[in-house]
Amino acid sequence: MLSTKFAIPDIIFGHGSITHLPQCARRVGAKRILFVSDNGLETAGWVDLVKEILKANSLDCVYFNNVDSNPRDCQVHEGARLYEKEKCDVIIALGGGSPMDVAKGIGVIAGNGGQIRDYEGANQIMRPLPPMILIPSTAGSSSDISQYCIITDMKRQVKMSIISRSLVSNISIIDPQILVTQSRNMILAAAVDAMAHAIESYVSKLASPFTEMQALKAIELIIKNIRPAADDNDIKAMEQLSIASTAAGMSFSNAGLGALHAIAHSLGGFYDVLHGRVHPVLLPPIMRYNMSACRKKMGEIGRQIAGSRLCPDNHLADVGIDILEELFTDLELDTKLRQLIPDKTHLETICKVATRDACQLTNPKDAHWQDLLAVCEEAW
Amino acid sequence: MLSTKFAIPDIIFGHGSITHLPQCARRVGAKRILFVSDNGLETAGWVDLVKEILKANSLDCVYFNNVDSNPRDCQVHEGARLYEKEKCDVIIALGGGSPMDVAKGIGVIAGNGGQIRDYEGANQIMRPLPPMILIPSTAGSSSDISQYCIITDMKRQVKMSIISRSLVSNISIIDPQILVTQSRNMILAAAVDAMAHAIESYVSKLASPFTEMQALKAIELIIKNIRPAADDNDIKAMEQLSIASTAAGMSFSNAGLGALHAIAHSLGGFYDVLHGRVHPVLLPPIMRYNMSACRKKMGEIGRQIAGSRLCPDNHLADVGIDILEELFTDLELDTKLRQLIPDKTHLETICKVATRDACQLTNPKDAHWQDLLAVCEEAW
Repeated sequence: MLSTKFAIPDIIFGHGSITHLPQCARRVGAKRILFVSDNGLETAGWVDLVKEILKANSLDCVYFNNVDSNPRDCQVHEGARLYEKEKCDVIIALGGGSPMDVAKGIGVIAGNGGQIRDYEGANQIMRPLPPMILIPSTAGSSSDISQYCIITDMKRQVKMSIISRSLVSNISIIDPQILVTQSRNMILAAAVDAMAHAIESYVSKLASPFTEMQALKAIELIIKNIRPAADDNDIKAMEQLSIASTAAGMSFSNAGLGALHAIAHSLGGFYDVLHGRVHPVLLPPIMRYNMSACRKKMGEIGRQIAGSRLCPDNHLADVGIDILEELFTDLELDTKLRQLIPDKTHLETICKVATRDACQLTNPKDAHWQDLLAVCEEAW
Repeated sequence: MLSTKFAIPDIIFGHGSITHLPQCARRVGAKRILFVSDNGLETAGWVDLVKEILKANSLDCVYFNNVDSNPRDCQVHEGARLYEKEKCDVIIALGGGSPMDVAKGIGVIAGNGGQIRDYEGANQIMRPLPPMILIPSTAGSSSDISQYCIITDMKRQVKMSIISRSLVSNISIIDPQILVTQSRNMILAAAVDAMAHAIESYVSKLASPFTEMQALKAIELIIKNIRPAADDNDIKAMEQLSIASTAAGMSFSNAGLGALHAIAHSLGGFYDVLHGRVHPVLLPPIMRYNMSACRKKMGEIGRQIAGSRLCPDNHLADVGIDILEELFTDLELDTKLRQLIPDKTHLETICKVATRDACQLTNPKDAHWQDLLAVCEEAW
């Protein structure tokens, strides 16, 4: 076994944990905070709540909300200018992956200067970021846990994967009560994203025992809780999804992802497709593509997915994928690529761009752009 | 579910991971290092190796080795004086729990002044410690992971539990090749300590889903690997014990321990009993004492211990304890309290001191000194 690294932020988890924010902000030395969120969370009332909590504790904050669902380089640069102009010293973000990734991008520029595209790829950030506290509003992206930051380069129409230990926040505050204000579609998109994180990182070339135990637990919890959370907005089930997403985050942040995320980033950059909608379409065919490289591990994944259903050990790997496909269909998610993009014109380009994504490096089986194209054709 | 915290250091794990030490030292800003270890690791050659690695990378270090197996307040103070006199800025420790706990104690004094006894209990450390890198030489104490530091107050003959987020090191470097130079007795004492960490933290009042998944994994791995590691010095089994110990460390550091560790600390302070020798004696009776407060969780523990043995679900809790007792006997460990201490004269005092140990706070069932005394009598 080669050396492996495992790094995560301090995590504060539980109902009402948002009330610990002022104490956390003080611990990281906050005097003037840049607070990043988005319109959706303003409407849900959470942005005002955070502002009030900070104000009631005499913590000064500047608000920034220019964040798209596939966040853009220009938005990061605008936020970084605000951070500098307002002489901020700490960044707090509340949101799904998008506000959190913009916050990280702002942190990169604040600490290192230049343009966000200068840091594309793995380990390109040389100087520390300002302290960051992240508060996730979805149980999916786990950007609050991870060393990933995904930003779209608008000129190239490419979602850049920026990966660095420096991108792990100082503190993640996970309050499941924030999650229940999400729509069914958002809950599902997030849960399926977390499932994809768990599965891709479990079979990743960099998986370690520390990431593997987190990944399997995440798969088990998502399978058990995705329906009651999405269909009944069950608060207990949402809490379990939140635990699952955090565990999946610990796993993929340290083990890396694979070809599915590489294609999802490429599709998101080209067509602005919502990230979580890609996985029900491409996760099963990517698992089948990778099967020959990691059949035993796919069996372990199948065991978590099959749960108490009886199934011979040597069939678990395949049965797991079949059950996932049934689940996505039952949940009425789009499962065909043609439902996400208008035509096949740019598929070749999308697959070529995907092979250059940093996530591709840890896919268990080498994949040329032609292999990825075949997967996309299968999913069309 | 109440708010729960989860904090661990960055972990670098694997054969040869010790070679990453200079890079880690630079990352935390080392200019002059205080390096803490002990005679056993000098004899095994690891102390010289670490010195050479640091020297070859032009990292300046001062060596300190006055460390007992139950480390003493005076040793911490001596180390702290050396740290100050030599104008050190980073602490590195190589060892089992003892050198690592002394290193932490030195860090507390270096950052906060005063005497180590000023910080006894939970959350008494107000100012940050110098950066610390810890390299465990046993798969048991997990002091490299934990927010615990156990130091004997020689005047009171009490092992003080000092517990604080500040005691989590910056980086833990876990190199399983260092473990194989341990004797059978040391390997067993460490593995049983890790097992006790996993079991006590799993049923702790502060257990959370994040700590529970780590604890169960640790129990499973220790049961599978303790014999081949101890009896055959099997390197793969040692590696698995090392993973288990780290997982148990993540669990107990964040969930706390219980009455077993409270008594073990009290016994260690009074009689200088080697910590790992207490658990085969007291773990089973403490589990039986706690049973009524956490029968379902004891069943989950039993499931990990029983492994593939068939057993009805409602018997798992009891069967798990029986199998543990058989295991300790088979391994020829002392399983009676009379084998550890000369007589019963001070048992009452020992149990009274134990009820004031911080570990007692998270025990799943309240325990007065009379309850602990009854457990000790049962184990006599």
